[in-house]
Formats: sequence, structure tokens, C-alpha cells
Amino acid sequence: MSKETGKPLVPSNIETLKPYVAGKTIAEVAELYKPKKIAKLASNENRLGCSPNVKHAIDQAFKQIQDYPDPIARKLRAAIAERNNVKPENVLLASGSESIISILCKTFFLNKENAITADATFVGFFVQIGVRGIHMKNIPVTPDYKFDVKAIANAIDENTKMVYIANPNNPTGTYLTKDEFSWFMEKVPEDVLVVMDEAYFEYAKDIEDYPHALEYDYDNIIVLRTFSKAYGLAGFRVGYAIADEQLIKNMMKTKLTFEPTTLGQAAALAAYNDEDFLAKSVKVVEESKERLYDFFNENNVDYVKSISNSVMMILPSEDEAIDFTQKMLEKGVILRRINAFGLPNCIRITVGLPEEMDHFEQSFLEVVNKQ
Amino acid sequence: MSKETGKPLVPSNIETLKPYVAGKTIAEVAELYKPKKIAKLASNENRLGCSPNVKHAIDQAFKQIQDYPDPIARKLRAAIAERNNVKPENVLLASGSESIISILCKTFFLNKENAITADATFVGFFVQIGVRGIHMKNIPVTPDYKFDVKAIANAIDENTKMVYIANPNNPTGTYLTKDEFSWFMEKVPEDVLVVMDEAYFEYAKDIEDYPHALEYDYDNIIVLRTFSKAYGLAGFRVGYAIADEQLIKNMMKTKLTFEPTTLGQAAALAAYNDEDFLAKSVKVVEESKERLYDFFNENNVDYVKSISNSVMMILPSEDEAIDFTQKMLEKGVILRRINAFGLPNCIRITVGLPEEMDHFEQSFLEVVNKQ
Repeated sequence: MSKETGKPLVPSNIETLKPYVAGKTIAEVAELYKPKKIAKLASNENRLGCSPNVKHAIDQAFKQIQDYPDPIARKLRAAIAERNNVKPENVLLASGSESIISILCKTFFLNKENAITADATFVGFFVQIGVRGIHMKNIPVTPDYKFDVKAIANAIDENTKMVYIANPNNPTGTYLTKDEFSWFMEKVPEDVLVVMDEAYFEYAKDIEDYPHALEYDYDNIIVLRTFSKAYGLAGFRVGYAIADEQLIKNMMKTKLTFEPTTLGQAAALAAYNDEDFLAKSVKVVEESKERLYDFFNENNVDYVKSISNSVMMILPSEDEAIDFTQKMLEKGVILRRINAFGLPNCIRITVGLPEEMDHFEQSFLEVVNKQ
Repeated sequence: MSKETGKPLVPSNIETLKPYVAGKTIAEVAELYKPKKIAKLASNENRLGCSPNVKHAIDQAFKQIQDYPDPIARKLRAAIAERNNVKPENVLLASGSESIISILCKTFFLNKENAITADATFVGFFVQIGVRGIHMKNIPVTPDYKFDVKAIANAIDENTKMVYIANPNNPTGTYLTKDEFSWFMEKVPEDVLVVMDEAYFEYAKDIEDYPHALEYDYDNIIVLRTFSKAYGLAGFRVGYAIADEQLIKNMMKTKLTFEPTTLGQAAALAAYNDEDFLAKSVKVVEESKERLYDFFNENNVDYVKSISNSVMMILPSEDEAIDFTQKMLEKGVILRRINAFGLPNCIRITVGLPEEMDHFEQSFLEVVNKQ
């Protein structure tokens, strides 16, 4: 198209973006390698599935599926507001955390304003910042794979609009403590938005020194949560933001009118009200995580302790990470290399059900012993 | 937030955007006015519902709902490609036409590039252009409420990146003929993208002089279609674009990774394969439309003939449009004023089932006779 006139088809920030390369689906792995069984431990989904109450809720909602969704998700919004002691006007629902991050990028950045985050965190933030063409400062994580709040505070300049912190962090599973977060918030100017992505909140919330960002009295904190992880509803795409009313009001202007979907809204509400299923999900992760630590200790594997539902393995090199991931895939264990998250020699393992951990351990031993 | 430093919270294009004001839901209308029955004729949804095959398809897909959706919607993409004689690489799926339009705005515009459309067309395009802060030229529709292709061709300048045409147009129901579209495409420079929004394609496709934009051999045409209208799946949010591979490849970079949802993909595929339901849906609209024309003729109401599933009533003034819409609402007939679409004295009526048209006609007569 640009051949004749010399006009570029797309701006340079889009030109340089890499198109998303989809990972292999369970069906493709089954067809390619024909493993006896498959453990999908790649995307931090809830391996228990979702609350049994969800099915009935979506069957009811399906009866009006020809109609557009409620654009402000009134019922779900009210339930989230009530549980978090805020007003509905402090809550925004959208198609998963990725959509919320896209909304943040569309809403708040003036020309030349920048964002700051870690070099090893959720790739979705990197992507949306790139789509919007925003300048970003990636601050290296600490030697123990944590957000370096001191370096981030130092990097804030007069053009900084936003700091993005995933807490617990993805893919590392590490977290900022209450003391670290308090220290950081005192340093941050009040016109810098602090986005606290708490996608793994439900796994982390009972840890004593884990800060619940909503309980801190700063108008510039935006908390993100999701139904894609502990609630087991990734296929529905439902996430939310809680923040000052003025921030939410502006974000409402840039969300798509009819996100999230009708069934997503109904499913999320049913899941939100089933505390037993959530407790069971958290317990399974706790038990499998302890077991995985023991296994890694016995086998001299470097790893990072996690407060989310994944554990990060550290390999000596990128080549070894590529090789190990591929060999595990051939045995039906789907893992996630996290080169796109800034850690090319690391692999993220979603903590699954006991039988999935059996499969992981057995395959691991077979792969390692053959090497 | 900007009090102390004077830094604006949001850029001016966001500041001036109006937040979306949700219309009343069926439940709210029921509670507020307690009408004997309700006819939702406001949003051009399919009043027949959706294909009976959809339910089984989503029940199957629900079994993996804890997992993320297929990011490229492989099966649905292949089905759409096959039916339209293109490659899968020419097809992009996303969360409804509004999301596709958002993707267009995120992908293609360089600074200072502009877009052109009519002053009376789909409000979703106006909104997304505003979110992205793109300069837009709104060309008045012709006296018979059609896109004015001559004026649009004249308005194209060296900074024009995109022309957006809804064909059939929403809210007017009018269309560009084959001759008009051919004439226009010959005038458009090849580095200007021509977005043909065919959201109502299924209602229009058999009309003799209606152009199927896909059949025209221009690399700069982007066709949009949706499952929200004739397929009756608005609650799922699934739409698609068909275009040159190079365009789709760039659009893939800015779509959200996991749109559309798992159940949306499954539902759309099931609906796409049920040609009987589609034919029935189109037939009901044809019959109810003829009946509505007759009713308007008998009652001396100005209206515009439509090739989509809605008919536009023309009232003498905005005040009368407001008054009529409100009085119909109180009787349980939900209509859409189209002030946001640029026509403040007009009302859009979705063509519904026979019993809904009964309700419309009876309420109309009561409202008009009381005036």
C-alpha cells in the first residue's frame, strides 16, 4: 500500500510490535505428540475448573443472549462494590485484566508521558503500552526477583503518568510487603497513578505481610483483579478495576460499550458468591506448591518461592529452558517459557491438581535422567 | 489530582468524551412503568433469539471454561474463510464490531491522519475515533439519508487514512448501490483504507443492486461483519473483519490476545452453520417491515425505507422525538432515539416479531390519539 505514495501503512510503534504467536492448544499437543495424558500447566488457570454454581447462572442468562449485555454490569458491579466497601462508581468491569490495562493506556496518557514497571512482569502490560506507543522505563527486578521499589521511585520523573506493579508479581510469584508498599506510596507523587495488578489476590490475601492495596488511603491507586485465575473463568474474560470515582469515570469513557459479555457477567457473579469453591481452590494450590518445593529441593532445582498459583524454575541458560520445555511438551506437560516476560532462562509452572503434579514429576525425572 | 501540579489527568480528547449513558434495561422498564408487556425494539437485535444449535455448542465449550480462549479462534476463522473464499489469514475475530473498530483506530493512524464518514452513521465509530483522538470529517448525508459518496471523495486529502461506510447504513437503513460503490472505489486513492461495515449484510445480501464489498478487487477494502444482528448473538460479542493479509496481520497486533471468548467462538460457529434459522430470521424481518411501511403510510408517518432490520421514523422536531419515545417507553415499547447518531428528530425502530409489531402499533395509536 505504501509502495506508490511512500506513506507508511501503520505508525512505527505498531510496525515494530510482534504479532501474538499462539501457544499450542491441548488438541494440538494431543495430535502432535500423542502423549498418554496432558497436564496444561502453562497459563495459571485454575485446574479445578470453576464453581458448580456457574452453569445454572449462565443457562439462565442465555435466555436473553440475542440482546446486548448490560454495559455497566450493574449486578456484578454492585456485588464487587459491596464486598470491598466502595461505591459501584468506584468499580469498572471489562474483558479481563488485559482489557483493563488497554483502557488505562487509552485513557490517561498525554503525549510524552511515560510509564514505569519492572523488566520481568506481566507481558500484557508491555504489549498494551506498545500498542499505545507510550515510552516505558523497565526497571530491573532485584536479585531475588522482586519489584525494585527504590529504583522505581528514583526513576519517576515529571513526565511519569503511571507505575505498574503486579502484586504478587507474574511470572515470579514474589511480592511487595506491607512495609515496602507503604514506603513506596509515600515516595510517589500524587499525580502519578499506581496500578496494583492483584490478579492473584485470592491466593495471596491471607499472607500476613501482603498488602491489600485497597486498604491504603491514596486516590492515585488503581487496583486490578480478575475472574480468570482463582475463580476459574478465564474463558469468559472478566476483570475489574477499583479506584477513585474520577478515575473510573474517565475509564468508563474508553471501555468498549458492551464488555464484558452477558454470560461473563452472570458467571462471574455466581463464582463470586461461592466462597467454598474458592477456599478449596486455594487449598489445592497450597498443597501442590509445598509438594513442588519439596520435589525441587530433592532434585537440586533452583526456583523462586511464590504466593500465587505458579512457581518459577530457574535454569542455567535460555537454551536449556527451551530444551526442557520442549521435552516436557512431548510428554504432555505444557509449561510456559517466560522469555516474553523478560526472563529467558526461566520457566513458569502452574501449580495443578495432585495427578497433574504426578505427571509433572514423573516427566521431569524422565527428561532429566535422559539428559 | 491535577490540583497541585497543574498536570491534566487525561488528554483533551478524553476529557471531552461523554461517558456512555446506559439505556434502560427490560427489568428497569418493567419496574418503573409496569407495562402489561414489553417490546424491546431499540437495539436491532434478532427478536427470534438465536439458532437452537447454539445451546449444545456452548455446553460443550463450557467444559474447558477455566482455560483461556483460543486467541485466534482457529475453527471459527477457518469456517468464515471458507465460506468467503479467502484464507484464514484474511480474517480477524474480535469482541463485536465495536472492538474491530477500536482495533482499526489503534492500528492504522499516524499523527495528523484523519478519517472520513457521514454525519449520521454508527455512533460506535464516532466514539472510537474520539477515544484515539483522531481528526474526523463528518460529511452530511444526502437529502434521502444516504452516504454522499461524491462529497466524501472530494473530502479525501493527503492526510486521509480511512473512510468508514456502513452499508446498509445504521441508523438510516439506506445503502450505496453497486454503481455508487464502484464509482467511489475508482476515486479513492489506494493508500486510503475503505472500511465497509456490513453489520446488516445478512438482511441485505440478496438485494440486486446491493454491492458485496468482498467481491471487489481492491486491497484497501476492510469488510466488517457481526454475529450480533441476524445471528442473534449480541450477548456474546463476536464480530469479524475480512481484508488483505497485510492489514489483518497488523490488526492482529493490537487486538486483545484472548478475544472473543470461548463460548462466543463456539456459539458463533454453531450459528454460522445453521442456514435455516438465518433464513427464517430474514423472512420475519421482511414481513414485519412491509407491515410497518403499510402502517406508517396509513398513519401519515414519515419514514425511510430500509434494507436492514430497522426502520427510521422522521418526526418534525427533536422535542417531539423525545416526547414520543418517552410515551412509548411508558407503554413498554423501547425505541431508540438517534440523536447520538446525528439525527435528533429521528427514531429507530427495530423490526420485531408479529406480536411485538402489534404492541408497537397499538401503543402508537394510543400515544398519537392522546396528543
